Amino acid sequence: MRIALDAMGGDFAPSATVEGALEALAEEKDLSVILVGNEDQIKAELEKKGRNNLPVSVHHASQLVEMDESPLAALRRKKDSSIRVAIDLVKSGGADAMVSAGNSGVVMATALYVLGKIPGVDRPAIATTMPSLTGHFVLLDAGANVDCKPLHLYQFAVMGEAYARFIFNIPKPRVGLLGIGEEDVKGNELTKLAFKLIRESHVKFIGNIEGQDIFSGEADVVVCDGFVGNIALKVSEGLAETIGKMLRTEIVEKVVASDKTDTAVFKSAFAGFKKKMDYSEYGGAPLLGISRPCIISHGRSTSKAIKNAIRVAGVFHSKGVLDIIAEELKEGLSGREAVALEE
Amino acid sequence: MRIALDAMGGDFAPSATVEGALEALAEEKDLSVILVGNEDQIKAELEKKGRNNLPVSVHHASQLVEMDESPLAALRRKKDSSIRVAIDLVKSGGADAMVSAGNSGVVMATALYVLGKIPGVDRPAIATTMPSLTGHFVLLDAGANVDCKPLHLYQFAVMGEAYARFIFNIPKPRVGLLGIGEEDVKGNELTKLAFKLIRESHVKFIGNIEGQDIFSGEADVVVCDGFVGNIALKVSEGLAETIGKMLRTEIVEKVVASDKTDTAVFKSAFAGFKKKMDYSEYGGAPLLGISRPCIISHGRSTSKAIKNAIRVAGVFHSKGVLDIIAEELKEGLSGREAVALEE
Repeated sequence: MRIALDAMGGDFAPSATVEGALEALAEEKDLSVILVGNEDQIKAELEKKGRNNLPVSVHHASQLVEMDESPLAALRRKKDSSIRVAIDLVKSGGADAMVSAGNSGVVMATALYVLGKIPGVDRPAIATTMPSLTGHFVLLDAGANVDCKPLHLYQFAVMGEAYARFIFNIPKPRVGLLGIGEEDVKGNELTKLAFKLIRESHVKFIGNIEGQDIFSGEADVVVCDGFVGNIALKVSEGLAETIGKMLRTEIVEKVVASDKTDTAVFKSAFAGFKKKMDYSEYGGAPLLGISRPCIISHGRSTSKAIKNAIRVAGVFHSKGVLDIIAEELKEGLSGREAVALEE
Repeated sequence: MRIALDAMGGDFAPSATVEGALEALAEEKDLSVILVGNEDQIKAELEKKGRNNLPVSVHHASQLVEMDESPLAALRRKKDSSIRVAIDLVKSGGADAMVSAGNSGVVMATALYVLGKIPGVDRPAIATTMPSLTGHFVLLDAGANVDCKPLHLYQFAVMGEAYARFIFNIPKPRVGLLGIGEEDVKGNELTKLAFKLIRESHVKFIGNIEGQDIFSGEADVVVCDGFVGNIALKVSEGLAETIGKMLRTEIVEKVVASDKTDTAVFKSAFAGFKKKMDYSEYGGAPLLGISRPCIISHGRSTSKAIKNAIRVAGVFHSKGVLDIIAEELKEGLSGREAVALEE
């Protein structure tokens, strides 16, 4: 498998990206990585870290996409950016998959423009992984499509289920529809219609799942539109950070007040908790529905997050997950059947 | 002020409701409470706790609304329920405001049916209070209206701002629109149009606020439709609980492993944190837009939560908050102006 890595993407690039590539190569056989970006900077990083005869190459790209750049502007003016060149490599057959921790909107727009969609997919979705009490679950769409139709949510369910099955090795993933009541008839117009469609699919549909239950481990896949998904994701991130700050304040006050306690124990407890909440364990978020494997990784990606994203990109390719999704969508509901069911 | 309290509502009724009423009466002058529900049970509770010459009376209601009962069924078949009778008392002038920790959907539907709306309000909203790093903020709508139009969100902004101003004593509350990007042009169809309308209102509008920022204290009022609001609220509740469980596990493991540390310090730190997150501090959620003050309280309300909800109901009445909202909406955008702005 040959992975094109946007070596310039993310807050800690190119150090974290090059390091992550080397870590992935050290762990996986049958893998090669093409580092895309400023050749001089990447080579300097490789020099520093030692390439150790690993199958890594450098592909120069002269431009850089900023984190706040608009997708349209980047598509027009950054035709030699590390994002664009990495995606072009996948298109031309020079790579099997791509990974980027850069501007996710630009990655999505560029991938859509250059690589197109899987047959049967109307809208690609961002599938993000979140921690639960029993492990983790996949939430999609996490922000690519702010206004969705019921058939889009049906397609998200099929794609997310395949992702959980092949990447997380869950034989029969349970799929829930994010809603505001457990009964079939609860929800807004969109989710009430999507409920009817997903019920007709081959996935193990557990019905509506409420916000408070997504972290309990009841569902392996949680489906929603990109507006709701982005808010659920961001609210979770914000609250986890806030709770961490509040607890630290309390603990510091109490520990200082009591002066009896070893703070190392607290630190160790927090570290264990942080590991459970750590996005970098999960290997990025695939752009599900793009015709070839494209994985976006958090802007704050560490080398470990990059390494895991590369691993996931490789599994996508080697297991042929996207072909399987296309096949399952072909056997599923057509747009015309969906409209008939909605009525 | 005379508050009609649904004495049978909530998991710990009538013990917590009667206790909460007595606590409120002990703290506030110019207050009387009418306990509505099963006369025998309520009198037995009063007997047990001691009425101490406080201005509390009992109004019998023969029926009880279950927590999972549908609003329509309750409206039709439970015309002598504690919820209905408490609301009827407000309608007839026997009480100035009502409080219930019972089935919130039934309270909303009954209040809408019996009391109607404030002039200028199309849809009443549930305004819930959530903790932030710097204190707390109001989120509305928290679940009453799953499909909203831009003008509804405009009205939520005006109502929520007045609530924060008069109940939380914030002279100029900052109002944010819950969205997925800070720029004006980001969001879904609904929020992009609502943004244009709220910008025209008298409130201090800080624009879009993203999910991760609502807990930082940037906004005093966060506006969204009821589907999104319910999910944001429930995701927060579920995550806070999950984090609590994860941390407890970690801490128990580490403390047991180290055997050096006094667990009382941890317990004390958790207690401080829990107090900050404690919904019972905030005094329930008003049904903003109903013509008279109606406050719903959490199903798990303790006596303290009931006491605080009674206090808030009293302030709504004594400060004439609903009249002020009607006045401000009258001076604000009409439906026709809103449609013109949306185009």
